[in-house]
Amino acid sequence: MIPNAYRSLHCNAVRPEHIGQTVTLCGWVNSARDHGGVIFIDLRDREGLTQVVFRPEENADVAAQSHVLRDEDVVQIIGKVSARLSGTENSKLPTGEVEVVALELKVLNKSDVLPFHLDRELSNEDMRMKYRYLDLRRERMNKNIRTRHKITNAARNYLDGNGFVEVETPILSNPTPEGARDFLVPARLSPSKFFALPQAPQQYKQLLMVAGLERYFQIARCFRDEDLRADRQPEFTQIDIEASFIEQNDIVNLVEGLLASMFKAGQGVDIPLPFPRMTYQEAMDRYGSDKPDTRYGVEIVDMADVFAESGFKIFRSTLENGGVVRAINAKGFAGITTGQMIRLNELAIQAGMKVKQLAFIKIENGEYKSPLWKFFGEVEQKALVEKMNGEEGDIIFFYAGTWEDACNILGKVRLEIANMMNLTKDSTALNFLWVVDFPLLAFSPEDQSWVAVHHPFTRPKSEDVALLEAGEYGKVRAEAYDVVLNGYELGGGSIRIHESDLQAKMFSVLGVTPEEQELKFSHILEAFKFGAPPHGGLALGLDRIAMLVCGEDSIREVIAFPKNNKACDLMTDSPTNVDFKSLRELYIQSTWKEKKLEAATVPVTPIV
Amino acid sequence: MIPNAYRSLHCNAVRPEHIGQTVTLCGWVNSARDHGGVIFIDLRDREGLTQVVFRPEENADVAAQSHVLRDEDVVQIIGKVSARLSGTENSKLPTGEVEVVALELKVLNKSDVLPFHLDRELSNEDMRMKYRYLDLRRERMNKNIRTRHKITNAARNYLDGNGFVEVETPILSNPTPEGARDFLVPARLSPSKFFALPQAPQQYKQLLMVAGLERYFQIARCFRDEDLRADRQPEFTQIDIEASFIEQNDIVNLVEGLLASMFKAGQGVDIPLPFPRMTYQEAMDRYGSDKPDTRYGVEIVDMADVFAESGFKIFRSTLENGGVVRAINAKGFAGITTGQMIRLNELAIQAGMKVKQLAFIKIENGEYKSPLWKFFGEVEQKALVEKMNGEEGDIIFFYAGTWEDACNILGKVRLEIANMMNLTKDSTALNFLWVVDFPLLAFSPEDQSWVAVHHPFTRPKSEDVALLEAGEYGKVRAEAYDVVLNGYELGGGSIRIHESDLQAKMFSVLGVTPEEQELKFSHILEAFKFGAPPHGGLALGLDRIAMLVCGEDSIREVIAFPKNNKACDLMTDSPTNVDFKSLRELYIQSTWKEKKLEAATVPVTPIV
Repeated sequence: MIPNAYRSLHCNAVRPEHIGQTVTLCGWVNSARDHGGVIFIDLRDREGLTQVVFRPEENADVAAQSHVLRDEDVVQIIGKVSARLSGTENSKLPTGEVEVVALELKVLNKSDVLPFHLDRELSNEDMRMKYRYLDLRRERMNKNIRTRHKITNAARNYLDGNGFVEVETPILSNPTPEGARDFLVPARLSPSKFFALPQAPQQYKQLLMVAGLERYFQIARCFRDEDLRADRQPEFTQIDIEASFIEQNDIVNLVEGLLASMFKAGQGVDIPLPFPRMTYQEAMDRYGSDKPDTRYGVEIVDMADVFAESGFKIFRSTLENGGVVRAINAKGFAGITTGQMIRLNELAIQAGMKVKQLAFIKIENGEYKSPLWKFFGEVEQKALVEKMNGEEGDIIFFYAGTWEDACNILGKVRLEIANMMNLTKDSTALNFLWVVDFPLLAFSPEDQSWVAVHHPFTRPKSEDVALLEAGEYGKVRAEAYDVVLNGYELGGGSIRIHESDLQAKMFSVLGVTPEEQELKFSHILEAFKFGAPPHGGLALGLDRIAMLVCGEDSIREVIAFPKNNKACDLMTDSPTNVDFKSLRELYIQSTWKEKKLEAATVPVTPIV
Repeated sequence: MIPNAYRSLHCNAVRPEHIGQTVTLCGWVNSARDHGGVIFIDLRDREGLTQVVFRPEENADVAAQSHVLRDEDVVQIIGKVSARLSGTENSKLPTGEVEVVALELKVLNKSDVLPFHLDRELSNEDMRMKYRYLDLRRERMNKNIRTRHKITNAARNYLDGNGFVEVETPILSNPTPEGARDFLVPARLSPSKFFALPQAPQQYKQLLMVAGLERYFQIARCFRDEDLRADRQPEFTQIDIEASFIEQNDIVNLVEGLLASMFKAGQGVDIPLPFPRMTYQEAMDRYGSDKPDTRYGVEIVDMADVFAESGFKIFRSTLENGGVVRAINAKGFAGITTGQMIRLNELAIQAGMKVKQLAFIKIENGEYKSPLWKFFGEVEQKALVEKMNGEEGDIIFFYAGTWEDACNILGKVRLEIANMMNLTKDSTALNFLWVVDFPLLAFSPEDQSWVAVHHPFTRPKSEDVALLEAGEYGKVRAEAYDVVLNGYELGGGSIRIHESDLQAKMFSVLGVTPEEQELKFSHILEAFKFGAPPHGGLALGLDRIAMLVCGEDSIREVIAFPKNNKACDLMTDSPTNVDFKSLRELYIQSTWKEKKLEAATVPVTPIV
C-alpha cells in the first residue's frame, strides 16, 4: 500500500538519495517553528520524522497557508527533497541530512489543542486512559504495541514451525473448577443458565489431545473476575500449549526455544540455552520463593548445624521442635537506615512473623552489633560468621520458626533488601530459570481440605503415586514446572493425568463428590476412557513477557486498551448501564441498591 | 519434539529407506485384524497410518499380548521396518510398501468401544457434538482444523508482510450501536452495570487510527446474541483490518492479495487477480442480490422497452406507475416438475410476491406455453423472445412490481433454479467479485427512520455529500465495498468518516439525539477533533472462508467446538446453572419461571 495516492514514502524514509526528487508525505505536525517568518515543521508518521520547510520563494501561497499549522494537524505535503544547509543537519534523526521543501500542502484534518503534551511523561494515569488514543501516539507506546506484535508473531511462527496447530476454543464456555471467580454471561436461549468466560482453555486443549491433534497452541484470551490488586487485568492473553506423546523435557526444550525466539524478535538478543533448572524445594530453601530472582545473591542459609546446641534458647528450641533457623546476609548494608529497618519489619510481620523485629547482627567497625550476640558461645559465633561469610559492613538477618514461614518471610525480606540496595538497577541480565518438582497438593486451612497446587488435571510423579494411594498427600510431587525470569513467573504447566481412574481419584482427594464429578466433569472423565494419549502442556503470560521485553514495569504499558484497577475502561466509559428491555430478554434483573439509598432511614424499593 | 522418548518417527514417515531399522511409533489402533492367529494393526497418528504385524516368531510374548488390542487403544510400538511380502503392498498408503514387525508393545491407554464408528459419516449431529473429541479424530475433521490453521497463518504473514500490526482489543467492551443483540456481562466491580461482548472491534480499530498506528489487523473473536437461524454461531472470527491514508483501491488490492495467499495456502491454487468489480446497482439489476453467484447466468433482464406499450395491462400499468418488469430465462428447464414450480412460487411469495404464481412462458415443441402469451402482440412476442434468447426447452419467468421486489424475488428464484438445475454441481470455479458503491442509508419502514446500510461510521462518497446535506438520503452512495465468492459474502468494509462534524451529522440523520451522541459516542466524536487521519478498512469472515477453502457446507465443520442451533455446547453441557452466591456477588437475579409452572393454574413464586 506504499506508495499510494496519499504518499510516496514514509517520513523516516526520506534520505540524501532522494535529493532533487518530488515526494508526497502524510502525517501529523509533530511541531511547528517560525524562523523569521519561514515555517518549519517536523512531520510525523508512525515510522518517524521528516523536516518540512515552507519557503515563500518556492510557493508563496503554500508558505502563507503554512502559518495556520498547529501541532497534531493531519496534513499531506508534496515537496522537493533538498540537502539541509551545512551546519543545520540533525545527526539524531535518520532523516537529519535532508528536508522537504513544500510545494503543496493539504490539511486533511485540523486538530484541537491536545489535553496533554505527547513529548512529556504524564503521571495522571486516568488522563492517559481517558485519552488512550492520544497516549498511544507517543513513540514509546507505539513501539511497545509494535514490539508486542513482533514477539507474538515470533511465537506463532516458532510453534507453527514445530508442528503446532492453532485452534480457537470457545469464549462462551463453562465455569472453571477450583479457579478464581468467573465472568458470567446470561444465556438468552437457555433462560436462567449462564456461560462463563474461560480462565484458560484447559479442558478444551486436553480434549483436543483426546481428539488426536497431538500438538495444539493458541494465543488465547482469558478472563478472571478478581479484585484488581497489583498489576492484574480482568482479561489477559496467554500462549497456550498442549502436546501428546511427550515428557516434561520435551516441553522444557520447546518453551526455551520459544522464549528465545520471542526475545530475539523483541530485543535482538540471543538468550543462552538451556535455562538452569531448580527444584521447588531448592528454590524455597535458597530464595524463599517459587519464582526466585537469581540476578543477585542474598541467599537464605540454613543455620541448623550452627545453632543445634545454641546458648540462645529460642533458636535451639525451634530446632528441637522441628522448626528451622535461617539467615540472610545483606552484604555491605550495615548502613541500613532506621526507616528501612522499620519497613523490613513491617514486611516480615505482613508475611507472618510473630515477633516485632527480625533478629540481626550488624558488623561495623570490627564489632558485632546485635542484641543476640552475647547469647552465642564463641564456637557458635565463629561458625556463624564463617557460614554467613560475615564481613565488615554486612548485616545478617535471622528467622526461627516453621519452614514455610522462614521461606516466606526471608524470601520477602530478601526482595526488599535487593530493592533498597538497588541491586538490579540498570541490570540487563535475563535470568531465566525452570522451577520443577512442585508439590501436587497443598492443605488449605481455610477450606480444611486439600487443593491442587497447579490444577486438578496435573499428574503426580510416577514414583509418588504410591504416596497418593497411601494418603500421604503432602509428600506427592507433581509433574509440574514453571518458567521464571528475573523473579517473574512467565508461565507454568504440567504433564496431565490421562487415565479416567486416576483423574477420578484426584477429584476425590480434592473433595469433589461423585455426584459433582458426574455433573461437572463427566465429559472429561468419559473422554479419558476413549483412548486419551499421554499429554501435557504449559501456558505463558503474553502480557508479562511483552512487558519484560519492552522493559516496562506494568502490563498496562503493553496493552492497547487496558482497564483501570476498578476494571473500567475510562475511554469508552465501559462497563455501562443497559436498558431494561435488554435485561428482560435475558430473564435477569439487577438487585443493586445505591449505597446512599441503603443509608437512608426510610424503607426503599430495590432498583429493578 | 520429534524424535523424543515416545517416538522416533511419525506413522506416515515409515518408508522403504527405513527397512532394517528399529523404529518407535505411537498412536491409536485404527483397526486390528487376525490373519490365522497373527495380529495386524493399522497404527494411526495425526500424520497417517503404518501397518504393524505381531509375528510370534519375532517375539512370542508380544504377539500373545497383541490379541488384547482393540480399536482406538493408545499404544507405543518398537519394531523393525520390513518390506511387505510381494503382492501385499498397499498402493493407497504412503507407507504401503513397508510394515513394522513389532518387537515391543506398550499399551499407553485402553479404549472403550466408541459410541460411533470413525470411518462412517454420522448424520446424528447431536452425537457428533456431544463426542466432538471423537468426531475430530476423523481424517476430514483433522484436515479441516489444520487447513484453518494454515490459512489463518497465511493471512497473518501476508498482513505482517504488508506492515500491518496485530493489536488485541478488549472482549469486555461496550454495546454496539445499531447492531444485533449483544451478549452482556455483569460487572461485579461496577454493580448494575454491564460489559458487552464486541460484535466487531469497530470503534477500537478506528481509535487505533487516531492513535497513529496507520495499519492494524486482528484475527478477532466477535459475538452476536441472535436466534441461530441458518448457519450462524454466537461467536465467530473475523479478520479485521483498518488503515490510514488509504483509498478504497488500496484496501481492494490488499484484500485481493490476502485472499489469494489464503487460498494458495489452503488449496494450493493461484487465484487470478484482480477480481471483477460491479456496482451495487448492477449486481441488483442483473442478479437480484448484493452477493451474486456469478458461476452461472440465468440473469435478470429489464423488459421495460419490450412491454412499454404492452397489450398485457398489468405489465404496462406497472411500468407507467414507475415500477419494473423483469424476467429470467431458465435455459433448458422447461421440464420443470409441478413440485418444483410450487416450490418456486412459495419462495417468491416468501420474498414478497403479492400474487400466487410467477408469470412464465415455457417453450416446448415449438410452442409458447403461457397464460400470458395471448395478451402480447406479435411485435411484442418477437421482441420478448429475442431479448430473452428464448429457445426450445427454455422457461422464462416474469415479475412486475417495484424495483426492490423484482430484485429480491427474481434473485431468490434464480438461486433456487440454479439449485434445482444443479448448475454448480462439481464446479471448482472460484468466482470472486467486488460489489461497490453501496447506498449509504436505507429507510426502515418498521422503525420509520433511516438506518445505515453498512454502519454509522461509513463515509458518503465525496460527490454525494451534497445529496446528504440536501436531505436526499436515499440517493447517497457510500464508500463501501463487499467481497463476494460464489454467492457468499466473504466480508465488507468502507472508508470511514474522520471529521467530527460529518460524524455528528451522520448520527443526526440516523436519529441519534445530541444527548445520546454525548452519552454513547463522545469518545469517538472527541477523538476525531484531535487529528484523526483519513482511514478505512474491512472485515472478512474467517469461518466462512475456511468453510469454502475446505469445501464444506457449514461453518460448524471448520470450528473445533461449535455451538448447536440453541447456542449450546453439548460436549461440556454449556451454558450451565450457577450457584446463587455467584449471582448475588454480581447483584443480579434470574426472573425465569419454568414454562410448566406458568402453565399451572395455581399461583407460583418466581424462582429467584
